[in-house]
Amino acid sequence: MLKIPDHQVAGHHASNGTLGPLIDDSGRFYKPLQGDERGSAEAAFYKQFTSNTQIPDHIRKFFPVFHGIQVMTASDGSEHPHIVLQDLTSSRINPTIMDIKIGSRTFGHEASDEYIAKCLKRDRETTSLQLGFRISGLQVYISDELGFYKPPRDLVLKSSVDGVRSLFRRFVAADQSIVTPDLEADAALASAVYGGTDGILAQLLELKAWFEDQSMYHFCACSLLFVFEKRLALEGASQNAQVKLIDFAHVTEGRGVIDHNFLGGLCSLIKFISEVLGDREENKTQEGDS
Amino acid sequence: MLKIPDHQVAGHHASNGTLGPLIDDSGRFYKPLQGDERGSAEAAFYKQFTSNTQIPDHIRKFFPVFHGIQVMTASDGSEHPHIVLQDLTSSRINPTIMDIKIGSRTFGHEASDEYIAKCLKRDRETTSLQLGFRISGLQVYISDELGFYKPPRDLVLKSSVDGVRSLFRRFVAADQSIVTPDLEADAALASAVYGGTDGILAQLLELKAWFEDQSMYHFCACSLLFVFEKRLALEGASQNAQVKLIDFAHVTEGRGVIDHNFLGGLCSLIKFISEVLGDREENKTQEGDS
Repeated sequence: MLKIPDHQVAGHHASNGTLGPLIDDSGRFYKPLQGDERGSAEAAFYKQFTSNTQIPDHIRKFFPVFHGIQVMTASDGSEHPHIVLQDLTSSRINPTIMDIKIGSRTFGHEASDEYIAKCLKRDRETTSLQLGFRISGLQVYISDELGFYKPPRDLVLKSSVDGVRSLFRRFVAADQSIVTPDLEADAALASAVYGGTDGILAQLLELKAWFEDQSMYHFCACSLLFVFEKRLALEGASQNAQVKLIDFAHVTEGRGVIDHNFLGGLCSLIKFISEVLGDREENKTQEGDS
Repeated sequence: MLKIPDHQVAGHHASNGTLGPLIDDSGRFYKPLQGDERGSAEAAFYKQFTSNTQIPDHIRKFFPVFHGIQVMTASDGSEHPHIVLQDLTSSRINPTIMDIKIGSRTFGHEASDEYIAKCLKRDRETTSLQLGFRISGLQVYISDELGFYKPPRDLVLKSSVDGVRSLFRRFVAADQSIVTPDLEADAALASAVYGGTDGILAQLLELKAWFEDQSMYHFCACSLLFVFEKRLALEGASQNAQVKLIDFAHVTEGRGVIDHNFLGGLCSLIKFISEVLGDREENKTQEGDS
């Protein structure tokens, strides 16, 4: 039983003459192979990465499980190859999700003049150049009645630095302050989602340690996906928040050089998340004092 | 008593109608104020940084001491403002020096199209884009008879990745393998210069910890200077190798964002230095075993 995924916050959708992304009820996500070299590059990455014995287990868990390539037949009989991956939201009922494209630049050092110009324009129009990352999309569960807060993609991409700060607070807001224009959403779930020994910050620091050393891959234009279930966060459940790396169409070989572009952006992201967490814990202390 | 410095490996020199850099015998370096906005920007940085109480002492030591601005009179009577700084080589007899420009890009996020195009071209022609840094110049003391190994600046800037690896080995080579075309210079002084609790690697790691947190400045197009005295290194003296940050004409305000561009490049540099050190210590172990 295949269906169109409910919880995609960024990336490509179905368009004329193509099959879009699909999910099945066994927890698999079918990502259409992009028609140009990006599709084959992403498939090649997954194959190589899956068989690479130098990836430690505590790092492999940050990557979607790869189940191979499968040709899907559309209703008109046309055939479309898909990359079959672990569906990162299948175990979630109302997943709160953020997609963050990492890196101050989204082009590799060997890219063509034309491709560099295109990427650089986009990196300057968004926060990538300034912050080392840009938020590509998000959805935040509010309630069964109100559904999700899911601002339009273009609006998210055009966020200012303060806008990005605000989105990191809204992402972990417990109440309806999520949808108010106030920049200071309450961030009540910061400790539950960002904090703790298995929260998002701890996972980012684990990734950072690997990026300081690994020189096999340069993860150009890849994203980090944050996922958690608000109900579980409100209950204070552990192992709720997950960080995953996705979108490998522009991965290149590291050839002995670390991915300083990804690492720099990751460190900048860590600083933003730490600040939301620090502010929140400072407020809690002050509340306790009063 | 002013004279022209012997040990400048990169940067600007005297040209027609200007006074170049000068040193005096009390350990001061007189850097000509560049005529355009770069000069005033660098002077403004030194003034602001010197009075900034948020700079910890263990970080301030990485910056040259600033002694103010002084107008120097040339022999033709013309007047030229200079930034007066600590002369980083005055206590050295035969300093071995490397100048490394840090950052995958050398322009800030608010630079003009024209300036970005100019910098990006240079960053792509050198190793900046690929490695997150480029070696801008170096001199390695060989012996009183042979003097210094000081390859032409253009040749250094055009180094390949393997060329950069080789220069990091030559920089700490003890013997005449420095001047051989062999890429594997012996790196006999790696432990004495790069290693140890006060070696270059330890200093870079100290800087890295600060850059993971500080969001006051973005050090665009700044350089790290490595300096040591070979005689002292051969004797195994401690506190011989120094790391300094120089060239602040393009520093901008961080406005709450870490300098992910500098940090990424610094981490890449740390990986290169660690590898020379690791290789050398591996060789020593193997020699010990045999």
